[in-house]
Amino acid sequence: MKTLLQGRSEQMLIEDGGPFVVIGERINPSGRQGLAASLAEGDMSLVRRDAVAQLEAGAQVIDVNVSAAGVDEARVLPLAVEAVAEVVDVPICIDSTDLKGLAEALDRCPGRPLVNSVTGERASMDSVLPLVRGRQCAVIGLCMDERGIPKDASRRLEVAKRILEAVERFGIAPEDLIIDPLAMAVGADQEAAVATLEAVALIRSTLGVNTTLGGSNVSFGLPDRGLINRTFLAMAIATGLTSALLDPLDVEIQKTVTACELLMGRDEFAMEFLRRSRAGW
Amino acid sequence: MKTLLQGRSEQMLIEDGGPFVVIGERINPSGRQGLAASLAEGDMSLVRRDAVAQLEAGAQVIDVNVSAAGVDEARVLPLAVEAVAEVVDVPICIDSTDLKGLAEALDRCPGRPLVNSVTGERASMDSVLPLVRGRQCAVIGLCMDERGIPKDASRRLEVAKRILEAVERFGIAPEDLIIDPLAMAVGADQEAAVATLEAVALIRSTLGVNTTLGGSNVSFGLPDRGLINRTFLAMAIATGLTSALLDPLDVEIQKTVTACELLMGRDEFAMEFLRRSRAGW
Repeated sequence: MKTLLQGRSEQMLIEDGGPFVVIGERINPSGRQGLAASLAEGDMSLVRRDAVAQLEAGAQVIDVNVSAAGVDEARVLPLAVEAVAEVVDVPICIDSTDLKGLAEALDRCPGRPLVNSVTGERASMDSVLPLVRGRQCAVIGLCMDERGIPKDASRRLEVAKRILEAVERFGIAPEDLIIDPLAMAVGADQEAAVATLEAVALIRSTLGVNTTLGGSNVSFGLPDRGLINRTFLAMAIATGLTSALLDPLDVEIQKTVTACELLMGRDEFAMEFLRRSRAGW
Repeated sequence: MKTLLQGRSEQMLIEDGGPFVVIGERINPSGRQGLAASLAEGDMSLVRRDAVAQLEAGAQVIDVNVSAAGVDEARVLPLAVEAVAEVVDVPICIDSTDLKGLAEALDRCPGRPLVNSVTGERASMDSVLPLVRGRQCAVIGLCMDERGIPKDASRRLEVAKRILEAVERFGIAPEDLIIDPLAMAVGADQEAAVATLEAVALIRSTLGVNTTLGGSNVSFGLPDRGLINRTFLAMAIATGLTSALLDPLDVEIQKTVTACELLMGRDEFAMEFLRRSRAGW
């Protein structure tokens, strides 16, 4: 299936076999006190700078998350989305659990954004999906419900199916749903990464919808997190993952994505790989 | 299926879902003039040193290849195999196209070695398989025949099937065949890596035999070969590859294999990952 996203002037197609789509994750105050403080003051200069830097580093979609103590999301999220839309042409991923902020940000966002996210919980689906339908945009569905995140792949597929059914019931096209099977910490559960890889493969072969993953949960609590994250990313791309939330300013992640695109047969004459390699990454 | 290899005192089981097996590839004079020169003189000191160094770096099997201009394989290969068997307890992979050298090396090799390799060519199967049967050992089958290396995965599967049929006809157990679907240069053919990954998946699901790959062909002719090789390795392990010929002294390769084992759920409590990480790799 093809998920069409649109920014102020550029569009982006996410599809199986198509170029892997990097959703830049840096505009997120979690663990970034400077960003949290400037957001609390309504100062959007850092947000703009981060958006441009990620675009230049190769992000094809920019995630905007302003959730932090002291930040009024209902007021700040729309401002941040507008600020990003002013400086980049690519699609925006609006990342919030604040319904008021989300609704207002969707109203002010140009193009066809991606909503991050809905879960398999009844309350989440009933509140988020009407906004997605009203705006005719796309949405990320997380494989979790009232009982939490299922441990095994087949039960994550079940949650994905329920979200897909709800999406269609709300009059949203199935191709506008991107499933995040969720990656848990492999340091806490030995089977965590395998379960996620199996879920990516199952969701792809059974439902045919696009998939995405957050890029760093899997390494939580362990040393050498970058090594674990980029190795997991290569494994997930080989398994059919079509997009991920990543930090495009992380050079090693950039190198891994570029090598994966080459190896997946999506870099004609290795042109992009050679260009980036010659530029010293 | 389970491929049992045995060294002087240690045995190694290669199996789907089991630990990924690193076959140390360094004892190979191609591109190593010093090693070529010492082999030509019948000096086995470098061979011994390489064997020990690879074992210490984590190789579970040691490949022995002495093919170089000026080296009489029929005489030197058995000496090199004996030299390796003197210093390491793990299984040996005897890597030669010289039938006389191979037969003699097999006679002098302790345990249950791996022969590298037979192809799908009639002449190769008719000459190599009787040696494998006589020695009751295991063999690597390369997916190529009289017409060369098939471009697509399904035709590589056909070659693998023909080798498997011949193996059984010669009275060798199917689990003693490890298929190398072969990785070609992605810089020369955009679809090369994908074809290999698809072949790994097909051979695994259709024939159920173990698989192996040379670790570096895929990056031939491109810059940043290490990056391409280790990314490809992670993708291949995710696809079900059970072993590979690699340079275990390459720290980045070690890190990738250790991260893959962690992510594939084969490193209980992340103990091996933590041990290596804490030791600074």
